[in-house]
Amino acid sequence: MTFEKEFVIKTSAHQELIDITHEVKKIVHESGIKDGFCIIFIPHATAGVILNENADPNIKIDFLNALNKAIPERANYLHDNIDGNAAAHIKSSIVGPSVTIPIKNNQLLLGTWQDIMFCEFDGPRSSRKVTVHIY
Amino acid sequence: MTFEKEFVIKTSAHQELIDITHEVKKIVHESGIKDGFCIIFIPHATAGVILNENADPNIKIDFLNALNKAIPERANYLHDNIDGNAAAHIKSSIVGPSVTIPIKNNQLLLGTWQDIMFCEFDGPRSSRKVTVHIY
Amino acid sequence: MTFEKEFVIKTSAHQELIDITHEVKKIVHESGIKDGFCIIFIPHATAGVILNENADPNIKIDFLNALNKAIPERANYLHDNIDGNAAAHIKSSIVGPSVTIPIKNNQLLLGTWQDIMFCEFDGPRSSRKVTVHIY
Repeated sequence: MTFEKEFVIKTSAHQELIDITHEVKKIVHESGIKDGFCIIFIPHATAGVILNENADPNIKIDFLNALNKAIPERANYLHDNIDGNAAAHIKSSIVGPSVTIPIKNNQLLLGTWQDIMFCEFDGPRSSRKVTVHIY
Repeated sequence: MTFEKEFVIKTSAHQELIDITHEVKKIVHESGIKDGFCIIFIPHATAGVILNENADPNIKIDFLNALNKAIPERANYLHDNIDGNAAAHIKSSIVGPSVTIPIKNNQLLLGTWQDIMFCEFDGPRSSRKVTVHIY
Repeated sequence: MTFEKEFVIKTSAHQELIDITHEVKKIVHESGIKDGFCIIFIPHATAGVILNENADPNIKIDFLNALNKAIPERANYLHDNIDGNAAAHIKSSIVGPSVTIPIKNNQLLLGTWQDIMFCEFDGPRSSRKVTVHIY
């Protein structure tokens, strides 16, 4: 028994973390699947997904700033002759395109301080897909 | 058929890698599951899990030092006004909260030089959970 | 129902990204599995796997260069007294040893710009294994 659903989000900044925990929890509930796991997969090459705390929303800003220092937006990237978004490609590979979360009693087994965050590295975009697969 | 078990570890330094390969292998054995895969999921926002070599334990120190250079412990993070552990949150998102390892003949299909290491980024802590899910 | 297959690649540079999308798609097709997911697992401690765009092959070079700036090849690593490949170990832990991709109608649900790339961080090597597991 498997279940899948996708939803679309609109991003409003060049770089932005968006908390999608609520949307994913609703899909897990809708699936009715009691025990298994959930793959949240982002089908984009300049975005990603992480787990982290959103109780203090400043963590989202700290995360983006720190990543910008480690992987600068401009550094004579070869791909910037074409698209100007090389840094976004690099960040998305480091962060990764998916997270996998165990499910028990139809609940995601997230820790107390873990929220699910979509990572926009090359926005704003009108239509970013988040796909949720439950097995 | 699925199996799950969690165990708790105590960390003794602010930053530390702890080899948990032996504990995870015992759980795989106990599960009796022949073919499938294992998700090691860490339900914390300032810790993580990686695969790497522990034959030379210095790799653990090199890893933590290199990560500290890429993501400095202090950098006027906004979250540090509250908790002082912004760098730990950032590192845990980059490293990731889980690893997934295939299982065959009731054995983890790890490479010769791959060990499983819990990553403490905000210790010491008396009680860090490691959850192991086998499907 | 599960399926697995491994293949070997030869790398020809010290650091190199190699597009393995075609090989993985062939294995998915061969499996005949309609709905499920695919784990591409690299059983090495100085290599990894990412998803990213290969329409512009320069992104591979930009990725390796940016990672080399964030994690320098030489930085008085302790492990370099033994093997000289500490940076490769560190990069492989950051990038990660696997990607998980959902499958529907016997097709990998990759986004338009997502290709699967093996990451060599300590080559050249005559025999790097890529293992593909479909569930």
